[in-house]
Amino acid sequence: MTTPTIEWIEGEVRLIDQTLLPHEEKVLAITDPHEMVEAIRCLAVRGAPAIGVAGAYGVALAASRYGSDTGDFAEAVQALREARPTAVNLARMVDRTAAFADQGFERILTEAHAIRAEELQASVSMGELGADLVLEFTGGRPARAMTICNTGGLATIARGTALAVVQTLHERGSLVEALPLETRPLLQGGRLTTWELARMGAPHRLLVDSAGPFLLSQSAADVVVIGADRVAANGDTANKIGSFSLALGASHAGVPFIVVAPESTIDMETPTGAAIEIEDRGPEEVTGFNGVPVSPPGTRALNPAFDVTPVELITALVTEKRVVRFDREEKL
Amino acid sequence: MTTPTIEWIEGEVRLIDQTLLPHEEKVLAITDPHEMVEAIRCLAVRGAPAIGVAGAYGVALAASRYGSDTGDFAEAVQALREARPTAVNLARMVDRTAAFADQGFERILTEAHAIRAEELQASVSMGELGADLVLEFTGGRPARAMTICNTGGLATIARGTALAVVQTLHERGSLVEALPLETRPLLQGGRLTTWELARMGAPHRLLVDSAGPFLLSQSAADVVVIGADRVAANGDTANKIGSFSLALGASHAGVPFIVVAPESTIDMETPTGAAIEIEDRGPEEVTGFNGVPVSPPGTRALNPAFDVTPVELITALVTEKRVVRFDREEKL
Repeated sequence: MTTPTIEWIEGEVRLIDQTLLPHEEKVLAITDPHEMVEAIRCLAVRGAPAIGVAGAYGVALAASRYGSDTGDFAEAVQALREARPTAVNLARMVDRTAAFADQGFERILTEAHAIRAEELQASVSMGELGADLVLEFTGGRPARAMTICNTGGLATIARGTALAVVQTLHERGSLVEALPLETRPLLQGGRLTTWELARMGAPHRLLVDSAGPFLLSQSAADVVVIGADRVAANGDTANKIGSFSLALGASHAGVPFIVVAPESTIDMETPTGAAIEIEDRGPEEVTGFNGVPVSPPGTRALNPAFDVTPVELITALVTEKRVVRFDREEKL
Repeated sequence: MTTPTIEWIEGEVRLIDQTLLPHEEKVLAITDPHEMVEAIRCLAVRGAPAIGVAGAYGVALAASRYGSDTGDFAEAVQALREARPTAVNLARMVDRTAAFADQGFERILTEAHAIRAEELQASVSMGELGADLVLEFTGGRPARAMTICNTGGLATIARGTALAVVQTLHERGSLVEALPLETRPLLQGGRLTTWELARMGAPHRLLVDSAGPFLLSQSAADVVVIGADRVAANGDTANKIGSFSLALGASHAGVPFIVVAPESTIDMETPTGAAIEIEDRGPEEVTGFNGVPVSPPGTRALNPAFDVTPVELITALVTEKRVVRFDREEKL
């Protein structure tokens, strides 16, 4: 089993410092809510579900330290809410926990534990439903699963989304191997997913991103499983850059392409993928590699962090509650 | 204009050390054929046409140093032939030059110059024919051209293949911008193509490989131009890993996908791409970069150096002699 990404132990929040992985496994012990703000900000903890839980425990730390009826408490809650402005999950979980301020620390901690337990349960359910679906596609034979980015316990507490499916297959004895893509520019696949797969003892081989579609055409995998940052009302899915080309490769090779994401990722306010704005994260991540400059100084770059895969290229969406078979014209 | 990749000046072969680019521009002055063997072996000079010329000049150096009727000459020729066993071009150009051994150094040097001049002329022709074709597709409007790997003067002497098309468009005032892919694992696009584009003053922005297909779907380019390592008799094309996913992206977006390669790349003995063996270059290039590890120690990897794009996804092949429109059912 993997180390829990984040837990509450005797008044401290323990979390694994993801910035040091895979070369160093250091567990931070956080006792101050403002240290938690910093851990979220510097990406020691990352991934929307994980920072939601981190924020909730941060509120518990603030209540423990200051009392939940103080100005210091309110100030810490505000700082936690704003530690990373783009992840809606963080503000939502901080608010949900802080809503119990009038009932004091113990009630707040209970709520934070509940949030963590819900994330855990959701990821178990996604793993089970996803593994069932994969084995339906393989006719029960053990599967080779290609994936991108880091969608395991590090990003999400517990088992994750797409990687929960891989882990569940592995625990059932139904995984031949996982084929993670390295996921340029930030190499979450090469750094973190390989580390998680090694920890769970799952056989795996790493690929450069552009090899994924070609190896699908060479029958190297039975299925592609990916996570999602946002699923539009029609099923179009925004996820890490590279997901779209993998979907093209899967479609060309006739390999099922499965999105695994919690219900909270589905955004019925966004009609289609065309309405999803894609963040460009600037040139430095592209013109260097792991902090080492590669290109001539001053090289410009296009750096879309995400892409949008149209629903026509997606076989199914698996959430903690259901499987939606887009290939059978099912709707959300 | 760019520095010539390789030239003969007053009894020396001058070549730019590609292992140091883009951070240092060092010109090696080679006077000994065995130094040339080493330069080819360590990739100071790389790219099939460039090492063909380097080999031919190496034969001239051997004739100059030892006399072309000596055992030392024969030994040097053999070492040059075998400096890199997989590039057919090298052995072919060494043999073509060494065939004049009985006529002495001057005749050998003349032949080596002729080989260089032929490469230069071929690349000018590919650039012109390719630029004409691109502008036919854009209806004469300036073009945005996406490309992968390094196919410019560094790899090929002179202007190259796909990058010759980009350079010709730029010189005609018909290039809006070039969009080079970084080309993991060895980052020839990020290191070398950016450097060549900057030297020719052509506007460009770098992309991670997996962003290429998505940006094609967002209308970021009017055309994709790539080189080739081998073109099979039916038109299937082996090229740097990532070419296939770019072809899928171009096909999905309705963007012309053009292969630019000399006639010598066409291999009528290979009926289709299925007969092309793909070299796997081992895990280290994928699990790290430039000697710096990214993944946990012991991580396994799949590292196909090339992929095969089926002819159905290729719009046209441009050589120094002709344009073959696969999209109009033309054959080789």
